[in-house]
Amino acid sequence: MTERMARQWVLASRPPGEPSEENFALREVPIPTPGDGELLIRALYLSLDPYMRGRMRDVQSYAPAAKIGEAMTGGGVGEVAISTHPDFRPGQIVEGPLGWQTHAVSDGTGLRTVDPTLAPISTALGVLGMPGMTAYFGLLEIGRPRQGETVVVSAAAGAVGALVGQIAKLHGCRAVGIAGSDAKCGYVRDELGFDAAVNYKTTDVKAALARACPDGVDVYFDNVGGSILDAVLAQITRRARIVICGMISEYSLERPELAPRPTRPLLVNRARMEGFLVFDFAHRYPEGVTQMAGWITEGRIQYREDVVDGFENMPRAFLRLFRGENFGKQLVKVGEPAR
Amino acid sequence: MTERMARQWVLASRPPGEPSEENFALREVPIPTPGDGELLIRALYLSLDPYMRGRMRDVQSYAPAAKIGEAMTGGGVGEVAISTHPDFRPGQIVEGPLGWQTHAVSDGTGLRTVDPTLAPISTALGVLGMPGMTAYFGLLEIGRPRQGETVVVSAAAGAVGALVGQIAKLHGCRAVGIAGSDAKCGYVRDELGFDAAVNYKTTDVKAALARACPDGVDVYFDNVGGSILDAVLAQITRRARIVICGMISEYSLERPELAPRPTRPLLVNRARMEGFLVFDFAHRYPEGVTQMAGWITEGRIQYREDVVDGFENMPRAFLRLFRGENFGKQLVKVGEPAR
Repeated sequence: MTERMARQWVLASRPPGEPSEENFALREVPIPTPGDGELLIRALYLSLDPYMRGRMRDVQSYAPAAKIGEAMTGGGVGEVAISTHPDFRPGQIVEGPLGWQTHAVSDGTGLRTVDPTLAPISTALGVLGMPGMTAYFGLLEIGRPRQGETVVVSAAAGAVGALVGQIAKLHGCRAVGIAGSDAKCGYVRDELGFDAAVNYKTTDVKAALARACPDGVDVYFDNVGGSILDAVLAQITRRARIVICGMISEYSLERPELAPRPTRPLLVNRARMEGFLVFDFAHRYPEGVTQMAGWITEGRIQYREDVVDGFENMPRAFLRLFRGENFGKQLVKVGEPAR
Repeated sequence: MTERMARQWVLASRPPGEPSEENFALREVPIPTPGDGELLIRALYLSLDPYMRGRMRDVQSYAPAAKIGEAMTGGGVGEVAISTHPDFRPGQIVEGPLGWQTHAVSDGTGLRTVDPTLAPISTALGVLGMPGMTAYFGLLEIGRPRQGETVVVSAAAGAVGALVGQIAKLHGCRAVGIAGSDAKCGYVRDELGFDAAVNYKTTDVKAALARACPDGVDVYFDNVGGSILDAVLAQITRRARIVICGMISEYSLERPELAPRPTRPLLVNRARMEGFLVFDFAHRYPEGVTQMAGWITEGRIQYREDVVDGFENMPRAFLRLFRGENFGKQLVKVGEPAR
């Protein structure tokens, strides 16, 4: 590879079930040249997120499907290399939809500058980026926790879940996390200050939740779906709120799993279950970033990143999400800032 | 039977599945004597409602279970026969929790007087009673339909469903009903003014709904649950609201039916599914009754009652609900006012 060449990971095929490395192909292409009013960005960190599994389906969901033979879409942080765009100049750090590629041309759409003196630039993809905004707006606007309530969150050691529990604590709630290893459970309990944690791989989730939530579950922030959702539904309180943010346990199923409908617990408890997409709150990101940055500065919010080194490892890093192998926000480090 | 004796239907046994007449026993008891500050009510109309199936289970839900050997609970309209209660005098028509019995003693709890000059007294159990309030508050407060939206309601010819569709029309919505016979479908379309109706027994509900709701379903008022709910979920719009009011198709199942979880359509559409119990709006019934009575007087709301004659037919009338045999609010006529 020379400096004249860029690399891309393209979608090679659509998996019927769990994705594998064979679904992606590495391609080398000439570094693109930005047109008038455009900029060239050199990627530094690329983000891997569960939602990308949805893009691999040949189904229009809330976003278009990825196309076979084209670079996977995704967020990243990079450095402006060349720019004739009035708002961006070379050397600036930016965050936006770079895709799974080492170099991206942009007309500025969806791009924002990142101040590297405020926080590590990788946080623009995590606590101060999409996952942070997901936790902040999903919990506060859809979950609406009140002081003294019990908030349960799944994938509790993940990029979103870890923040949900900490924000719940800052609002005077009891925070209970569900995670897939004793190390993750210990982390959220001992380092992040959750009141309790349940290892869904080694315990009966329903029984463990009943112990961890003696007064029932007032808010459930669901990142995983599946049978864990069923277990939580069995112990919701009157007027409980269930934030449907993700369902990583179900993304790779070839056929939907069957389960009892949630209607009876919803009816008996007059509870609410509501789907949430962070993009609907894009107009309020500045508010969310300011609040989250303030909490970080005050030492009231902690975050953890799981950084895999090297662009060639993008698919491998992506697959870790579906095996619960990541511990914190999954990133791939692609390069260093030039200056 | 002499005038000294009252009759009661008591719960004889709990059905594992669909209830039958054998689950009830008719008992003759002396007409009770009201104590100080109490009143004796002679039943005129008794109400039969799907929620009573829940009371037959040995499970505390939002209300206590009925007890074996005790009179079934339920609403009714009657005439005050004897009263030492300061708020009630003999000859008045009252509505309240009379139970499945010809005579009831009350201390006034849950009792209200009914003005027989305003509307037929039986309407206090239907359009101006619990079903009317269910339609009014469930649709407007939980469903929150906006002008131009499409509102779908199941059990559309029933006590609640018929009103939901008409209230939706009064709010400028497209109203689509789901019902179990061509006669019921014709009724809601031609007599009640629904825009379309789907016979779930003779058509593919999903395909028929797609035709009846070309712009998708914005509000679904669900009285039946089951596979009809699944079919509606497949065509909800962004920010759709699903009011879980009842699930009569599932009440008598020995084991919950399994179905795909509704989380994916809720997430993709950022939709909300919420349980609703009319009792939570009891403090606002006067507002609801005034509004519904006004619409009836103006001829803008129609209602239909399905009256079975004779107290001895209570269980038989109750079972009609589960077979979809009732056509309008199911009542049993027990007596005539004395004056």
